Amino acid sequence: MTRLQAIYHIRCDAKSVDERARTIAVEQSVEMPLAAIDDPYVLSEIVGRVDDVREIGAGLFEARISLSAATVGRDAGQLVNMLFGNTSIHDDVVLHDAEIPDDVAAMFGGPRHGLDGLRRRVGAGRRALTCSAIKPQGLKPAKLAELARRLADGGIDYIKDDHGLADQSYSPFAARVTAIAAALGGSTAHYVPSITGDLDAMRTQIAVARDSGIDTVMVAPMVSGVSNFHRLVADNPDLAFLTHPSLAGAARISPPFHFGALFRMLGADAVVFPNHGGRFGYSAETCREIARRALEKCTGLRPCVPVPAGGMSRERVGEMLEFYGADIMLLIGGGLLEARERLTEATTAFVAEVHGWKSK
Amino acid sequence: MTRLQAIYHIRCDAKSVDERARTIAVEQSVEMPLAAIDDPYVLSEIVGRVDDVREIGAGLFEARISLSAATVGRDAGQLVNMLFGNTSIHDDVVLHDAEIPDDVAAMFGGPRHGLDGLRRRVGAGRRALTCSAIKPQGLKPAKLAELARRLADGGIDYIKDDHGLADQSYSPFAARVTAIAAALGGSTAHYVPSITGDLDAMRTQIAVARDSGIDTVMVAPMVSGVSNFHRLVADNPDLAFLTHPSLAGAARISPPFHFGALFRMLGADAVVFPNHGGRFGYSAETCREIARRALEKCTGLRPCVPVPAGGMSRERVGEMLEFYGADIMLLIGGGLLEARERLTEATTAFVAEVHGWKSK
Repeated sequence: MTRLQAIYHIRCDAKSVDERARTIAVEQSVEMPLAAIDDPYVLSEIVGRVDDVREIGAGLFEARISLSAATVGRDAGQLVNMLFGNTSIHDDVVLHDAEIPDDVAAMFGGPRHGLDGLRRRVGAGRRALTCSAIKPQGLKPAKLAELARRLADGGIDYIKDDHGLADQSYSPFAARVTAIAAALGGSTAHYVPSITGDLDAMRTQIAVARDSGIDTVMVAPMVSGVSNFHRLVADNPDLAFLTHPSLAGAARISPPFHFGALFRMLGADAVVFPNHGGRFGYSAETCREIARRALEKCTGLRPCVPVPAGGMSRERVGEMLEFYGADIMLLIGGGLLEARERLTEATTAFVAEVHGWKSK
Repeated sequence: MTRLQAIYHIRCDAKSVDERARTIAVEQSVEMPLAAIDDPYVLSEIVGRVDDVREIGAGLFEARISLSAATVGRDAGQLVNMLFGNTSIHDDVVLHDAEIPDDVAAMFGGPRHGLDGLRRRVGAGRRALTCSAIKPQGLKPAKLAELARRLADGGIDYIKDDHGLADQSYSPFAARVTAIAAALGGSTAHYVPSITGDLDAMRTQIAVARDSGIDTVMVAPMVSGVSNFHRLVADNPDLAFLTHPSLAGAARISPPFHFGALFRMLGADAVVFPNHGGRFGYSAETCREIARRALEKCTGLRPCVPVPAGGMSRERVGEMLEFYGADIMLLIGGGLLEARERLTEATTAFVAEVHGWKSK
């Protein structure tokens, strides 16, 4: 029977770690004393198995625990529940990674468009993609539309909503999306609205976006619930999806697995994550690994575009392209907006640098 | 204009903390350089305001940051996005608490039944409620139904699904719920199935549960997405909702706010959380505070039943009742199931102790 393997990093002393790993295996599967189980199928297949425990640093251990894929079924929420549901409450454990069998990953389906699809939408060839964000929240639709128009005039590929833009009374979703789509008429820039609320609300927003000709949207899966994100992807195969890291935390699920592997498997065509050296504390190594996981060859899964972001600026474009290569989307939000009345010129310069970049 | 106040605990040095607090206020509101904003409404109302910063320990500061309630609108997901979306990615900050204005809390609505309603369902008067869980996952519906019947024969009030029970092929939701409801016919015990999947799947499961006469269900809001949890509560005012802490993490959102305040405000009638001295690391003080927050008088919100759980045993019943008082639901899962063929007798003894308890 197919099994997943969850890989945990545990802070523990060497004497206790084997017992700690067994406890996690029980917590993440049957969650009860094994002595009280007499069903042979449960004991042989459902109880988590400790496949390996090894020391990887002082007081830090890696435990590999396999879980039956039958416990996950076809639901993304149940996948994260099985991998980390109760164990997320233990502060000595991080979900470092998971080995997901190809048939399970293929069932979730991965990006429907991915790197090639997002490049094709904007005629980008093999170069890096460019992206900016419209903000701040609080602006009325007409003002946001004007910002979008000025970014588009600078030749940017994608213009996403700030993740704070939802369906607020001062800028309702439908009014905003209609105004921005109208402002971008005739431009090659693609507007990427942020889709929020419960699943019904998200579907209504997607319908509104479609009516305005939009083909790419953004979702924060940890806010929406991964099952609902995955459902939207499955129900809208023609749309491309960017994921936002809101509420994804920092410390408990390793970012390369969270953003590079999990969100990709669930259908993210592009994944926004905090770049090193910006407003967030990820290391360069973590960021390189997120990008690697998003792009690496996986049977049946298209590559997902890494979108390092969070306090990026034009000054860092060359460095970021050297670091990540061209299979990337460069997102500069506030760093462009602070050009104010020179927003289009700043955008044009950003776009020119990306288009003209050649690896040293 | 109505404002929320988010309360963060920040690990920082004294010299940098004011700037760090201002950075969080910007990150959680407009997420861009203030110098690039010229809209007076945004500057005066939407930008987060640092109301107070004070040292509460060595290198630990409490910052109170107010946010416009207009940014939240009526969506629970946008509420958590505003309170902790991007800041959850910073590992020096914990969302300690939030002061939510009464009109915002009343809009979310809180428990529809709460403590009184859950007592009334089982004719419990003012005593503590009793609960157990059926598990392990992997058992077929008939076996789970037999366990439920034996717990019911012992006089237990509520029998909940283990949170690992979803809609798996070896025990599909509909077959399980139908079998268990039939097995409990004529008993006073209330079966509480775990509702999982995307919002559509959860609604289908609720319809199946209703057809079997079920009036109480369990949801894990951090897996389902808080917006979807809140939607189910609003759409099903006759159902009572238990929340499960799966994926709620330990370290980044303080448990008293997370379980006692947030889940209650969104409609949890009873909130399961890890008790001190069990399988999880919460302190007695944390648990007391969760229970206090779940029960405290709040304008317009019914009290929510605290359900301390996670490795509880019959031996701890007296101690837990002394600690929490009788406004509680005592949940013993594996600790009863390990009685195996004497499950009904162990349940009877547990129930008798709770019913007979008098505060010393």
